[in-house]
Amino acid sequence: MSQELKARLFGELESIVLIDPHTHINPHSPASKTLADILGYHYYTELAHSAGLERAKIEEAGLAPQEKVRRLVAWLGPLENTAQYSWLLEMCREFFDFQEERLTTANWEALYNRAAAKMAEADWERQVLDKSRLEQVFLTNDFDDPLAGFDTSRYIPCLRTDDLVFHLAKATVRQRLTKATGIEAGSASKLTAAVGKLFDHFVSHGARACAISLPPDFEPNRIPPESVDPILKTIYPGGEPSADESRTLAQFVFWTLAEQCAEHHLPFDLMIGVNRRVYEEGVFQGQDLFDQRTSLVQYRRLFNAFPQVTFPVSLLAQASNQELVSHSWIFPNVVTNGHWWYSNIPAYIELDCRSRLQAVPATKQIGYYSDMYKLEFALPKFRMYRRILASVLADDFVISRSWSETRALELGRIVLRGNVERIFGLEC
Amino acid sequence: MSQELKARLFGELESIVLIDPHTHINPHSPASKTLADILGYHYYTELAHSAGLERAKIEEAGLAPQEKVRRLVAWLGPLENTAQYSWLLEMCREFFDFQEERLTTANWEALYNRAAAKMAEADWERQVLDKSRLEQVFLTNDFDDPLAGFDTSRYIPCLRTDDLVFHLAKATVRQRLTKATGIEAGSASKLTAAVGKLFDHFVSHGARACAISLPPDFEPNRIPPESVDPILKTIYPGGEPSADESRTLAQFVFWTLAEQCAEHHLPFDLMIGVNRRVYEEGVFQGQDLFDQRTSLVQYRRLFNAFPQVTFPVSLLAQASNQELVSHSWIFPNVVTNGHWWYSNIPAYIELDCRSRLQAVPATKQIGYYSDMYKLEFALPKFRMYRRILASVLADDFVISRSWSETRALELGRIVLRGNVERIFGLEC
Amino acid sequence: MSQELKARLFGELESIVLIDPHTHINPHSPASKTLADILGYHYYTELAHSAGLERAKIEEAGLAPQEKVRRLVAWLGPLENTAQYSWLLEMCREFFDFQEERLTTANWEALYNRAAAKMAEADWERQVLDKSRLEQVFLTNDFDDPLAGFDTSRYIPCLRTDDLVFHLAKATVRQRLTKATGIEAGSASKLTAAVGKLFDHFVSHGARACAISLPPDFEPNRIPPESVDPILKTIYPGGEPSADESRTLAQFVFWTLAEQCAEHHLPFDLMIGVNRRVYEEGVFQGQDLFDQRTSLVQYRRLFNAFPQVTFPVSLLAQASNQELVSHSWIFPNVVTNGHWWYSNIPAYIELDCRSRLQAVPATKQIGYYSDMYKLEFALPKFRMYRRILASVLADDFVISRSWSETRALELGRIVLRGNVERIFGLEC
Repeated sequence: MSQELKARLFGELESIVLIDPHTHINPHSPASKTLADILGYHYYTELAHSAGLERAKIEEAGLAPQEKVRRLVAWLGPLENTAQYSWLLEMCREFFDFQEERLTTANWEALYNRAAAKMAEADWERQVLDKSRLEQVFLTNDFDDPLAGFDTSRYIPCLRTDDLVFHLAKATVRQRLTKATGIEAGSASKLTAAVGKLFDHFVSHGARACAISLPPDFEPNRIPPESVDPILKTIYPGGEPSADESRTLAQFVFWTLAEQCAEHHLPFDLMIGVNRRVYEEGVFQGQDLFDQRTSLVQYRRLFNAFPQVTFPVSLLAQASNQELVSHSWIFPNVVTNGHWWYSNIPAYIELDCRSRLQAVPATKQIGYYSDMYKLEFALPKFRMYRRILASVLADDFVISRSWSETRALELGRIVLRGNVERIFGLEC
Repeated sequence: MSQELKARLFGELESIVLIDPHTHINPHSPASKTLADILGYHYYTELAHSAGLERAKIEEAGLAPQEKVRRLVAWLGPLENTAQYSWLLEMCREFFDFQEERLTTANWEALYNRAAAKMAEADWERQVLDKSRLEQVFLTNDFDDPLAGFDTSRYIPCLRTDDLVFHLAKATVRQRLTKATGIEAGSASKLTAAVGKLFDHFVSHGARACAISLPPDFEPNRIPPESVDPILKTIYPGGEPSADESRTLAQFVFWTLAEQCAEHHLPFDLMIGVNRRVYEEGVFQGQDLFDQRTSLVQYRRLFNAFPQVTFPVSLLAQASNQELVSHSWIFPNVVTNGHWWYSNIPAYIELDCRSRLQAVPATKQIGYYSDMYKLEFALPKFRMYRRILASVLADDFVISRSWSETRALELGRIVLRGNVERIFGLEC
Repeated sequence: MSQELKARLFGELESIVLIDPHTHINPHSPASKTLADILGYHYYTELAHSAGLERAKIEEAGLAPQEKVRRLVAWLGPLENTAQYSWLLEMCREFFDFQEERLTTANWEALYNRAAAKMAEADWERQVLDKSRLEQVFLTNDFDDPLAGFDTSRYIPCLRTDDLVFHLAKATVRQRLTKATGIEAGSASKLTAAVGKLFDHFVSHGARACAISLPPDFEPNRIPPESVDPILKTIYPGGEPSADESRTLAQFVFWTLAEQCAEHHLPFDLMIGVNRRVYEEGVFQGQDLFDQRTSLVQYRRLFNAFPQVTFPVSLLAQASNQELVSHSWIFPNVVTNGHWWYSNIPAYIELDCRSRLQAVPATKQIGYYSDMYKLEFALPKFRMYRRILASVLADDFVISRSWSETRALELGRIVLRGNVERIFGLEC
């Protein structure tokens, strides 16, 4: 009975047309070309590597897609239990008529060819979007992205700012900034002007968010320009900043971004908690981890200083979810955002989804984003979330609180779609 | 079948007459006078503010109760999913015959009037106590409360000590202390004497506990009086203590309280983890948050030094619950106490209730307290807890361990009521 | 239906013959001699003490086993709710035909005598192993254990190294090292040689792992020998090292152990997070607690430096489980290991088991170890785990992912047994 209820709610949630508020889609090549694009996703390469496949076998120069898939498939056995594998199987079934229970060295090749044929169809991108009921897709754009040559009403630009905040001491980053803005940002005021130009460019091309990922020990703070000028004077000729100077500069640029978000009415997505390059011999994008010893209290100055900016917050450490729930409950400008990376497995999504629905205003929760690199992933990832959401709506609302199914589905719709439209200003 | 079992256990747990071991009830005005007393509870004002209602609209000077309710009801829509809203609805249904599914701008006024009429009945307080099966209610009294003019056998005094520990540098606090004790506490020994007088006063008026809320970074320690004398010499003439001096003074006063608890055989309620005024523009009582980076290990010296004092411990961060379970399992003088504030939602209560019942002696668990400001809240809050307790007893004891229902209910009774009587010495 | 499925899977998992990869069994006296060996387990003495039984009553010199049991049984009432009590009852039922619902002052004596008679049977050890379906048992051996006089193919040696890493400043430890190796380790190179000798000895006697428990603040690092020589020059004549020197020396010895593990192809069991002697008046082995403020990121240098060493990791703080899941997902040499101590209760095992099965390669999870001191405990502890594993396999694989029961059981077998064989090199 409870199972039937959940199935019914899931079916209804499945019919909701989505906007995916955070992805790494390349709008010039949004869908996969071969199965290597799917199995090359870092979730599979890092898990296969973790299970025993050498990095060199995966990242060999000039490796043909078919051979890459062959090598990865051979290591899928130990991964069959993972949620990530279940996405893979779901994609293969939904998109490529795969009927087997497992993907193995014996059956991968036929699948590979069938997938390649499908992906070669002229309207493959459209087919995937339709089958996934996906209407709009947020991007993750480098700050110097020209944002040209794609439909920005379908693929919505989002200004990603990690490089600006954490890597301005690299000559290449400064050169890219100069090239993108025409400003040599050798002083605090010029840097502010350059950042302003980036925002103008992005907003004029339909950007709907600014975004950044942050290490666990980052603590935003307002820095006076006069403390930054000497640091810029050091780095612009190629000097190395000290650790203190790097932190100060990062805080300055970050605060400047928040000011620009206020000015341009852009939400500022904060993805908090990642330590980069912890496992340096890991595969591409499979080197980062986290430190659970972090707190949203580090962001109190930011949240207090910018009441007019909405901060959709993602946390890498699941243990931090209660802090996010509580901050979203207290701060009008903090909203919960999806289930990020290492927290994106059913056991954690379920806990986090339940606590958010029980304690955060319904209008302040962005249920899910796919974080995908290729369009095919939206379907299985959102389906995983919709299944959990259906289960929570059934148990905690229809059963425990005697809500009608219609009312529970209204709540589901707000969390899955309505809030994305409203928070990022996509309503017509 | 499992659902029926849970319903049966819940029904039995509902019949247990309660003592509420921690509230903020004003014994001179324990029940609500209008719906504004209920909707004015910080859980509703802060959630409505978080959802978008301006603080100025809620806290406008001279705002009539009816108008306050009108403004808050308009913002209830986004809160309907929350556990807090479900308490509201349950109160309206149980106490004021509210029959609707939602409280809206269209139906609130009739409810308001019906509630006002009920609340105006001479025996309203008695009605609420009876309907809630509430026998005794612990208070939270300022240290200089005269404790006069109310029935201290029903409303049990509890000495709240935050001001003494953390705000002695404020002239008003020192003046209140002098007035309450007749002692100008300008030295460590005089301060100790003054605190002793407060305990004498409270104990002679039936106090059953000393209580305090503590920030995440507080670490109790014994401070020699000679380290405190110079600090008191600084602050008594109005000087500002340094951060170090403030910490030392707080540690000294806190340790003195523990000594007095030992002498007067009072349990010392520790409510650990709150950061005050994190969101300074928040509504009244809606400004505090927490930092999960805290540990009960900070309290090792205290727990070791006072084996004769019972410490009922509440933690704000749910991630700390395992530390509480483990400390209660090891230290004879540490007991688990309720589900505090941001941890007081079903998803977290369930986890914490299960782990405590699985690993802490049954006699060392205070199941729940309401933390309420008005009597009407005991019913829905304790009902939420009883529902979860029934579910855990069913799953983890009757089903998993083949306990009889009678035996499971004995356990429930100990946790809900028996331990409160024994730990706070209320047994006849 | 779900209940029947779980019962069926549990029945199948129960039939799997086990290797217990971590215990404190004394191979010269593996099984209990009286019920005092069972009730004397620190889980019972510390819980009884926590509930009110004086330590002196438990640890009185010359206390007869029967009297010890009598005293402990009198305090079992408050512990009946605990998971630990359920193990006790299960042992009494399975091994000693105990039929009662509770163990009380009225019925313990007959049980005591029946147990004593059973335990006195010549083949009692064999009976327990058979009934528990236990084939091999890992030990925890002091570094100077001669490893003689027992069957090392059944009781597998494991080199426990806490003393070497954390207590080399104690004269007794240095003397034991000298005696065991014939080397006076007064310099870094001699210390390295001495540790090498210990490994030679252990490996030649069939050791399959090196193990250590670590405090929450420990951070492994490579220390150059020349930094260690002066410290050894201080301590060998009996001098006291400073806190800094102690830490440096501990890091040096720890790193040396990892080097030896690499050389001898031994896995290095890390049991992370314990604070020793927090409650100094506690019963024997009931004085330790933990601090949740710890992170696996502290181990990044170790995991990067020794890709050829497998690190089975146990964590004391359940809140750290996600870090373990994520590190095992990223680092090929990190595997999850059991459910340790304060995390070893159903509510936490369930969460941790689910998240590991959803995100860590199946081949990188050691499901469970008993940590037992007497053989009788393997049965109830592993049964608790098997019940939870059956439930997770049913819900998350058979029901949610439509796996066949056979396939789910294959996964269960890998986690329960197969990985122990492979990771510790026990395969024939």
